Amino acid sequence: MKTGFQNLSPAIEPIRWDSGTLYLLDQRELPQREVWLEIRTLPPFLDAVKSLAVRGAPLLGIAAGYGVAVGMFSSDAKTESELRGTFKTVREQIAGTRPTARNLFDSLERMERVVEKFASQGREKLLYELLGEAKEIHRAEVDNCLAIAEHGAPLFSNTKRIITHCNTGVLATGGIGTAFGVIHAVHFLFGLENVWVDETRPLLQGARLTAWELGKLGIPHRIVCDSTCASLISRGLVDCAITGADRIAANGDTANKIGTFTLAVACKHFGIPFYIAAPTSTFDLTKKSGAEIPIENRDEREVKGFRDYIWAPENSRAENPAFDVTPAELITAIITEKGVIEKPGAKPIVF
Amino acid sequence: MKTGFQNLSPAIEPIRWDSGTLYLLDQRELPQREVWLEIRTLPPFLDAVKSLAVRGAPLLGIAAGYGVAVGMFSSDAKTESELRGTFKTVREQIAGTRPTARNLFDSLERMERVVEKFASQGREKLLYELLGEAKEIHRAEVDNCLAIAEHGAPLFSNTKRIITHCNTGVLATGGIGTAFGVIHAVHFLFGLENVWVDETRPLLQGARLTAWELGKLGIPHRIVCDSTCASLISRGLVDCAITGADRIAANGDTANKIGTFTLAVACKHFGIPFYIAAPTSTFDLTKKSGAEIPIENRDEREVKGFRDYIWAPENSRAENPAFDVTPAELITAIITEKGVIEKPGAKPIVF
Repeated sequence: MKTGFQNLSPAIEPIRWDSGTLYLLDQRELPQREVWLEIRTLPPFLDAVKSLAVRGAPLLGIAAGYGVAVGMFSSDAKTESELRGTFKTVREQIAGTRPTARNLFDSLERMERVVEKFASQGREKLLYELLGEAKEIHRAEVDNCLAIAEHGAPLFSNTKRIITHCNTGVLATGGIGTAFGVIHAVHFLFGLENVWVDETRPLLQGARLTAWELGKLGIPHRIVCDSTCASLISRGLVDCAITGADRIAANGDTANKIGTFTLAVACKHFGIPFYIAAPTSTFDLTKKSGAEIPIENRDEREVKGFRDYIWAPENSRAENPAFDVTPAELITAIITEKGVIEKPGAKPIVF
Repeated sequence: MKTGFQNLSPAIEPIRWDSGTLYLLDQRELPQREVWLEIRTLPPFLDAVKSLAVRGAPLLGIAAGYGVAVGMFSSDAKTESELRGTFKTVREQIAGTRPTARNLFDSLERMERVVEKFASQGREKLLYELLGEAKEIHRAEVDNCLAIAEHGAPLFSNTKRIITHCNTGVLATGGIGTAFGVIHAVHFLFGLENVWVDETRPLLQGARLTAWELGKLGIPHRIVCDSTCASLISRGLVDCAITGADRIAANGDTANKIGTFTLAVACKHFGIPFYIAAPTSTFDLTKKSGAEIPIENRDEREVKGFRDYIWAPENSRAENPAFDVTPAELITAIITEKGVIEKPGAKPIVF
């Protein structure tokens, strides 16, 4: 893919395959330490995904492709029937890690089509094709990010102060990012005064990862608690908001990290634009509306503290919905690698 | 004061004066440890207030009264001029600790009137009267809480699920609480199914203190991240919201812990009531609107981590406005010890 943004490159390469080993940057350790997981079998891969060592919808898609490769390379399946059986198990285990992000399932479907096509041609051929497909998924996400930035940036020519939620940079996408990629491009095209970085409780992907990526790129930013959005916007300190997406329904309703909906409501209240940036692989047109998107409830300990540090009373319970669903009518536009969908709630989305 | 709610009592007594020593429950250590600060001189008192060992607008008012007593008891001022001079210094130092909570300044004004009246009658008489005034401020807040609960509870006879922000219980007020006292009364009158406890970043007064108090009283509750409010309300899981206040302007605009405004915007968006509960000492009728209320910006390290645990990148900056100002038009009613102010933005507030 050709775009005018090829010179934009991310701060780091968080996932790579080298000689039978999958290297994953352990995002739980960021920004304090850059720890690489070396993965050669399926169980540590599944742990890495479940525990958010790797996270972000597009990066989960990339990881799922390589995860299938890891699972198949580390098996001793030889016959067509063994290869198909092993793939079925691998696919089910990876599908059971994280229920919300569309990209993960999209990748598993792509890998399944490769198995359908090449399982009869022997183990070596199948592994070769599976790894090729995983790399193609990866390359496509890198290209998607550049194309999203190219489509999105012109919308922000007058934007100086932007707020974002969670992490949508290279650590989430494998490329320059979705919402983050737009911010990256806008800064280098037009110059941003400030990026407001929601800390993004409970896992603090904003405070830890987005701030770290912005810092590496020299983009001015300030971390704020998630609950400050109404105050910041009311004081005239925010021109618009942009976030990524984990899954988008056919009517434009968008599942994304918990807190996205609250930010979108605040933008609506004060009349500033609220944008989503996501590759079309994030769309799930089989879901008519956001009501059909499953929402992952995660361990309450994530809310009762951070990592091993628990500050809430032992006997108090917490709820930890990891995502929320922002209705399409609160979304000004969805920016994809294929173009911009204005007022996504107004008409059915087709590509 | 007589009310029908005398049987409601708080979970603990966080401030008390005994034989020249001020005992303060160190709220920074809760809920893990119950540590009492024994304060006999002004500097540790000032540190305790600045560092939020004691916090919450009404409790800050109570503390300010006792803080003046501590400062005067620990001085060796004897003559009228020395007593007045010492008081002036003590008052200025206490006034310099926290700029937003109205109650602190209200108490300092009351203590000043005692100095005006009794400074000429000698050290012992003045100290006796100052301590008496501090205890009267304390007793009045206890009574205020009961009266707020009595006025407020009838509004919630059909409420089963309520959301609150920050801490407004005994740890904030010295009595059964403002918003918390209403919740307490409503639960024992009508039975609540659930109290949603916003964790209240950055200092987590909800997750640590409100959850702890609710647990001690056996009131069902769930801790949630602040950013979940839109999602919870949209899913029909919240009947209404109630919070306390740090300062209320003459037009009903209400300064309260950062995040209150965002919660109020979400309530407005979905059409559920948003209540404030606060004693009239929280009102500052010299301020025409919220725009005139000073907002405290606190240390960025509070946002970059929690206590000594910093998770944000060292080189990233954070903004830490401790309060926001919710416009009166978003407030369904303000519940005070003197009665309920419906639609506070509709007409000027007088008592």
